[in-house]
Amino acid sequence: MPWVMKEPKSLFLTEDSLGIVTDLYQLTMAAGYFEQKMHDIATFELFVRNLPKNRSYLIVAGLEQVLHYLTHITFSPEIVQFLRRLPIFNHVGQEFFEYLKNFTFRGDVYAIPEGTIAFADEPMLRVTAPIIETQLVETYLLSMINFQTSIATKASRIVYAAQGCEVIDFGTRRAHGPQASVLAARSCFIGGCKGTSNVFAACELNIPAVGTVAHSWVMAFENEQDSFRKFHEIFPDNTTLLIDTYDTLAGARHAVMIGKKLKGVRIDSGNLLELSKEVRRILDSEGLQHVKIVASGDLNEDRIDDLLRNGAPIDSFGVGTEMVTSKDAPALGGVYKLVEQEHNGKIVPRMKFSEDKLTYPCKKQVYRIIDKADNFVKDVIGLEDENLQGMPLLIPVIKNGKICYNLPTVHEIQRITSNNLAHLPQPFKRLKEAETYPVTKSQGLEAKRHEAEKTLKDINVI
Amino acid sequence: MPWVMKEPKSLFLTEDSLGIVTDLYQLTMAAGYFEQKMHDIATFELFVRNLPKNRSYLIVAGLEQVLHYLTHITFSPEIVQFLRRLPIFNHVGQEFFEYLKNFTFRGDVYAIPEGTIAFADEPMLRVTAPIIETQLVETYLLSMINFQTSIATKASRIVYAAQGCEVIDFGTRRAHGPQASVLAARSCFIGGCKGTSNVFAACELNIPAVGTVAHSWVMAFENEQDSFRKFHEIFPDNTTLLIDTYDTLAGARHAVMIGKKLKGVRIDSGNLLELSKEVRRILDSEGLQHVKIVASGDLNEDRIDDLLRNGAPIDSFGVGTEMVTSKDAPALGGVYKLVEQEHNGKIVPRMKFSEDKLTYPCKKQVYRIIDKADNFVKDVIGLEDENLQGMPLLIPVIKNGKICYNLPTVHEIQRITSNNLAHLPQPFKRLKEAETYPVTKSQGLEAKRHEAEKTLKDINVI
Repeated sequence: MPWVMKEPKSLFLTEDSLGIVTDLYQLTMAAGYFEQKMHDIATFELFVRNLPKNRSYLIVAGLEQVLHYLTHITFSPEIVQFLRRLPIFNHVGQEFFEYLKNFTFRGDVYAIPEGTIAFADEPMLRVTAPIIETQLVETYLLSMINFQTSIATKASRIVYAAQGCEVIDFGTRRAHGPQASVLAARSCFIGGCKGTSNVFAACELNIPAVGTVAHSWVMAFENEQDSFRKFHEIFPDNTTLLIDTYDTLAGARHAVMIGKKLKGVRIDSGNLLELSKEVRRILDSEGLQHVKIVASGDLNEDRIDDLLRNGAPIDSFGVGTEMVTSKDAPALGGVYKLVEQEHNGKIVPRMKFSEDKLTYPCKKQVYRIIDKADNFVKDVIGLEDENLQGMPLLIPVIKNGKICYNLPTVHEIQRITSNNLAHLPQPFKRLKEAETYPVTKSQGLEAKRHEAEKTLKDINVI
Repeated sequence: MPWVMKEPKSLFLTEDSLGIVTDLYQLTMAAGYFEQKMHDIATFELFVRNLPKNRSYLIVAGLEQVLHYLTHITFSPEIVQFLRRLPIFNHVGQEFFEYLKNFTFRGDVYAIPEGTIAFADEPMLRVTAPIIETQLVETYLLSMINFQTSIATKASRIVYAAQGCEVIDFGTRRAHGPQASVLAARSCFIGGCKGTSNVFAACELNIPAVGTVAHSWVMAFENEQDSFRKFHEIFPDNTTLLIDTYDTLAGARHAVMIGKKLKGVRIDSGNLLELSKEVRRILDSEGLQHVKIVASGDLNEDRIDDLLRNGAPIDSFGVGTEMVTSKDAPALGGVYKLVEQEHNGKIVPRMKFSEDKLTYPCKKQVYRIIDKADNFVKDVIGLEDENLQGMPLLIPVIKNGKICYNLPTVHEIQRITSNNLAHLPQPFKRLKEAETYPVTKSQGLEAKRHEAEKTLKDINVI
């Protein structure tokens, strides 16, 4: 028998396999609904129960990839074959698998547009379709919205701390794998970053690709001066030098030898406050006031805030790990819950009341009340058809499975973020001890909830 | 002008674009080396400077995807065109872009096999190739090894806490996007999980797909009893019911109506210790001693340890967020450093000594010293050619750009993990306050370091 080498797998997602990028139970429940001939129109809403630690708002992100998914999800014949052979489906008839072969998402989706500020309990997505369709798409929607929203929110905090200094995403090597780095780069840009080091993301999203030079470049030459000179020869208009490989102040003195064409220096280690001040003095003493100081190395919003409050003369922050993993709050607990169901021609409100995990029934809308200066005053979560005062945040994005929404570019989304943040009063966006933004539930919604809770408790809690 | 809808982007990685899934500076440095005609053979090593919070060892993971990358990285003509147009490359000649069009990785790679235990400072990968090739691949290698190693390590801690009860990965919805969920499922299995809810991962890796049912199933029927009965009709051999939608104890009483064929019940909220005990009593009182209790809901190694120490009668743990994001330590700080370079026929040791970020020069090997019972005693990081006592951990995996290593399956890797952990003495794997495993540097390596440090300081620190 010849010795056959196993080929390494990429584990890349492909459009062909989108149907199974989900939890198994979505497929068993789908089979269950199918076998029970339950094709009721159901509505699910995606929301966050509690804001993560240190967060006072969310920047919604991830909708574009959700729309890609919902308009591309299919089950290839090979994948249907794979599912059919799983022992758990032993008692499920062939018709279900035929159904999967022809599966497309044909429902309606409402969403809060990317870049918009949202708060706990506010539905960011509302999906209405035959119950199998709404169920099957849960996992992917949650994964995408949870992650991108989490990173856009973190990035917005870091950008806020930087007080107008530019923030660049340097996080690719610390993101949760190479694809997460691309989604993170997108979300960081939405949150206000000026660019990314991730070339794939820059290419796909048409955003600035940014970079300086690594220690290895400096180490690869006989001495630091040589490495600086040679870099400048090749990148005369983009000479930002990394000066901390051996000794930061010596590095700064080597960098100034480049002269007027020097664009920037980067410091990646040590006491950034002290070093940036001393490096600034060295640059200025040579008449290089225009040379920018870039700082990097385990930065986050608190460290940046601290540096700038203490007068660190830093112009640009390269932020990695902390931003692309949202390190202090690395998961957003978004959930996706059944809120109502059309059963035998009747609309039935649905809710659960597991301990600490109660959900509100019925299709909802979020109404944002603003003052004359367009500043945000409060949000009311009400029923979809209540027509309350305020701007409705959920808008239609998919109708009968087709996109009915003009997708903004990430540049436009970045402007939406910036505009939203400009109208969120300062007490609600302080980095620490921010006030809680007022979000209430409408009387109509509370009434529906009490009614549904009573009915369901009478039936189910014996 | 007709109104054209922008198509939503998936942002999926593809083999065609692997060349640019990297930081921009890798490409500018590559251009720099090329323009300087610097084609020295360089060696880089990938290692972790400090173990993350609460970690006393690492389970190496991610090598298979690294090997896929290194044997598939190319630059398509479209991508070369994109790069050529970036302003930063204005002064770079056409030859470099022709070079990229023909780029393949042709170097040698040594690696610590997946599933092996490693510690801080130990090279997990060693890459030797012309310097451009070693440089270009840095970011992807770091991203893949950092993430998978981080998750495999976290999973191994959770499995250890579960004391033989099974642990299942339920984390897809909270991973950092859908691709991260697949890589996480792989790493969780390597770390000792019995299965995953992620169907794509199960299909690709041939590992068990596991799942129960969600609250939405229960909510979609008129009452809980109905939902249980109907699930059992379709999945008679796999009836594990979720009992906490309305009231856990009422749910348990509804579940026992299924009778002897009931396989399990899942509790996803509330006080798991008290509820599991009461649910066990309800099951046992109906003669359903064989019915398993599955617990889920924000579990981690500490909560599982606490539950089991207090006698919670739980058989299986579904773990999500905490495991797939390694929530208490969501980033592994792996770095990739130039350690030596062949320049004009001479081997030159390379190192940096940035504050707190000193690196050791020269090609290294990790020697693991074991006792007669195969238990791990200590590791020595030495020079590649020192031939020290102990088992060398780094083995050749790529030679001249071709894989020279018989890739194990994830099942085999899981056994390697389990075998490694069995031989790591208990004080080094306690969940809290574990002892620090002894890792020393060889005299030969220390001598090389002193020599290189002196030479480089004389040249660079003025």
